[in-house]
Amino acid sequence: INRNSDNWSEEIEEEIGKAVEQAKELQEAASSFLNGTTSEEQSLRSRAQSLDSSLRRLRSLLHSDKSNLLDPKLDEDLQRARCILTDGDAASFLPVKPQGRFLRMFLGPINVRAARKDIQLKVKEEYNSYRDRTALLFLLFPSILLILRSWIWNGCLPAFPVQLYQAWLLFLYTGLALRENILRANGSDIRPWWIYHHYCAMAMALVSLTWEIQGEPNCSQKQRGVHLFLQWALMQGISMLLQNRYQRQRLYTRIALGKAKRMDVVWGETAGVIGQLWVLCPILFILQAFEAYVGLLLLRTALDGVVSEWQVIFCGILLVLMAVGNFVNTVQTLMAKSRF
Amino acid sequence: INRNSDNWSEEIEEEIGKAVEQAKELQEAASSFLNGTTSEEQSLRSRAQSLDSSLRRLRSLLHSDKSNLLDPKLDEDLQRARCILTDGDAASFLPVKPQGRFLRMFLGPINVRAARKDIQLKVKEEYNSYRDRTALLFLLFPSILLILRSWIWNGCLPAFPVQLYQAWLLFLYTGLALRENILRANGSDIRPWWIYHHYCAMAMALVSLTWEIQGEPNCSQKQRGVHLFLQWALMQGISMLLQNRYQRQRLYTRIALGKAKRMDVVWGETAGVIGQLWVLCPILFILQAFEAYVGLLLLRTALDGVVSEWQVIFCGILLVLMAVGNFVNTVQTLMAKSRF
Ligand SMILES: CC(C)(COP(=O)(O)OP(=O)(O)OC[C@H]1O[C@@H](n2cnc3c(N)ncnc32)[C@H](O)[C@@H]1OP(=O)(O)O)[C@@H](O)C(=O)NCCC(=O)NCCS
Ligand SMILES: CC(C)(COP(=O)(O)OP(=O)(O)OC[C@H]1O[C@@H](n2cnc3c(N)ncnc32)[C@H](O)[C@@H]1OP(=O)(O)O)[C@@H](O)C(=O)NCCC(=O)NCCS
Repeated sequence: INRNSDNWSEEIEEEIGKAVEQAKELQEAASSFLNGTTSEEQSLRSRAQSLDSSLRRLRSLLHSDKSNLLDPKLDEDLQRARCILTDGDAASFLPVKPQGRFLRMFLGPINVRAARKDIQLKVKEEYNSYRDRTALLFLLFPSILLILRSWIWNGCLPAFPVQLYQAWLLFLYTGLALRENILRANGSDIRPWWIYHHYCAMAMALVSLTWEIQGEPNCSQKQRGVHLFLQWALMQGISMLLQNRYQRQRLYTRIALGKAKRMDVVWGETAGVIGQLWVLCPILFILQAFEAYVGLLLLRTALDGVVSEWQVIFCGILLVLMAVGNFVNTVQTLMAKSRF
Repeated sequence: INRNSDNWSEEIEEEIGKAVEQAKELQEAASSFLNGTTSEEQSLRSRAQSLDSSLRRLRSLLHSDKSNLLDPKLDEDLQRARCILTDGDAASFLPVKPQGRFLRMFLGPINVRAARKDIQLKVKEEYNSYRDRTALLFLLFPSILLILRSWIWNGCLPAFPVQLYQAWLLFLYTGLALRENILRANGSDIRPWWIYHHYCAMAMALVSLTWEIQGEPNCSQKQRGVHLFLQWALMQGISMLLQNRYQRQRLYTRIALGKAKRMDVVWGETAGVIGQLWVLCPILFILQAFEAYVGLLLLRTALDGVVSEWQVIFCGILLVLMAVGNFVNTVQTLMAKSRF
């Protein structure tokens, strides 16, 4: 038995010695790999940066050529070079847009940029499906509140479910704002307004949490604002679903083009996508008008003295601002698209 | 002149041609670099994983050796191999702990793990300095409220500043919870409780926002809970500063050890750090007792019928839970340390 256990302990000793060796080797290999890739990355980075700046210079040269001495094909060539640089693998080595203050505030200085294009696309797809799930809740939550209001609560919402809904909105908008900032860091061209819009929505959700909903003699008059807000949220759910359908189709077009390596086509607005825009935009404009209307109504209830809390005025102003901003930015987007 | 502009356009044409060439070359280089590193990374990853599992197996073998047949030096060797693997460059290739649901909920599926050890340490340092800045505000905010309360507000806090403070707390705890989850993904050994603790604190801040502060005949009796809570927050600011000093010293010790590549020392609790623990822990225990006391007082005001909102009961229960959890986890940490 002694002999046996001697054998056993020798074996273990050997194995442990081997493990230590392996650990050292692995450390060596990992360290040399990391050092090697760092220097290679550095060189790719500087090449990408210098190409980027020379493309910029050439473009401004071309655009300053008023007399049209130059071949128009040159512009296309330049466009193509730009696409190769910004939509291919080299894009990972372009200088990073500085990550916004919002991300730094919540996450600290971590890097949220994915190195590979396919992961970036995955992040975007996940964002879209998150919005889908959200849109359903956006429909469900206010509908339930409105239905219960007229069936059970006799036109007077109790505070708790409304506050639950507002807390959910706060959580939701924070998540959306974080995700959109992350998308931006990953090279999305999202207009800054759509992100600011979510900051405003966060502020509104936060403020409305502190807002006294229930109470005093005339409950249903006091809750007129909340009631309108819920109806607006319902409509927003529908528009979000449409918007998502549109955005998803756009993304798929881009991925398909990307897979086919047709980078010499400027990412196109294909016919199907444009068609959807024609359905979407009127709905968006109606929603935006309704948003402004709800805002103005809130302001009026406050000024009429029915409800005199500062929260009501604040939310009213925010809603009007958001409606105007949304309208202006939607119009600007459409104008930019029609220029192509 | 014609000759001249011909020359010019030729030059530009040439330059653009060169740029397109460069873009193609760069795309090629970037793509082959990314593919190359992917496969090498893969192999390092599988080596790290197999070493990791064999170390685990050996350790359990050693620990099952009740009869002490084996050389105790073997345990040290094993420890050393573990340190090389988990604290060196190879650590980047160990399988990633799945990122928690909390991060996925807010950020989606992005990777928050830094590849390099030095960046991971930077993230940790930034977390510490964030906590420092926070601790100062933690002192400032409640002090101002308490001072104004007795000097200007005659013992009755107005709602707005308190709600501002609660909104700040919500923002703060969300940030801390996100950052701690990120640290965890980057290999920190933080106990899950300290993160759950911040989830509870988030819930409390959210709920207290909906809590009616002002009003009704006896304001100062109604605000007894808020008042106590502010005093507790003051004390917490002080303890946070001490805690930060301690954590920073611990981190510096680790960085220094890491820089000296003395990975054969198990990350030590050095004498200076242990000394600080002796100062810190009594203060922590007092704080935790006070936390439970505030919670119980809230519960009593609710049960006495002075304030009968559900928010008061909820916050009371949460505070007691948090105090108990903090206490248990602090004791467990100390016990684990004394075992070394
Ligand atoms: C008008 C609209 C449909 C145009 O969408 P679009 O064709 O994708 O617009 P752009 O071409 O400018 O898109 C650029 C980028 O921003 C993103 N984006 C555009 N609008 C966005 C929005 N509202 N939210 C988030 N991302 C948006 C796009 O996905 C695209 O991202 P990518 O570069 O990663 O592919 C869209 O902006 C929209 O829905 N706006 C109205 C929103 C609104 O008013 N909501 C509230 C209703 S009250
Ligand atoms: C008791 C205490 C001082 C021990 O700290 P410690 O020596 O760092 O504890 P551990 O060795 O278990 O630390 C393991 C890791 O968790 C981290 N950690 C420990 N406690 C933490 C806390 N409360 N918050 C955030 N991170 C913490 C450490 O920084 C370390 O991280 P690392 O692996 O990245 O280096 C600390 O846990 C503490 O301060 N607890 C009390 C907190 C409290 O009760 N606060 C509320 C007062 S009412």
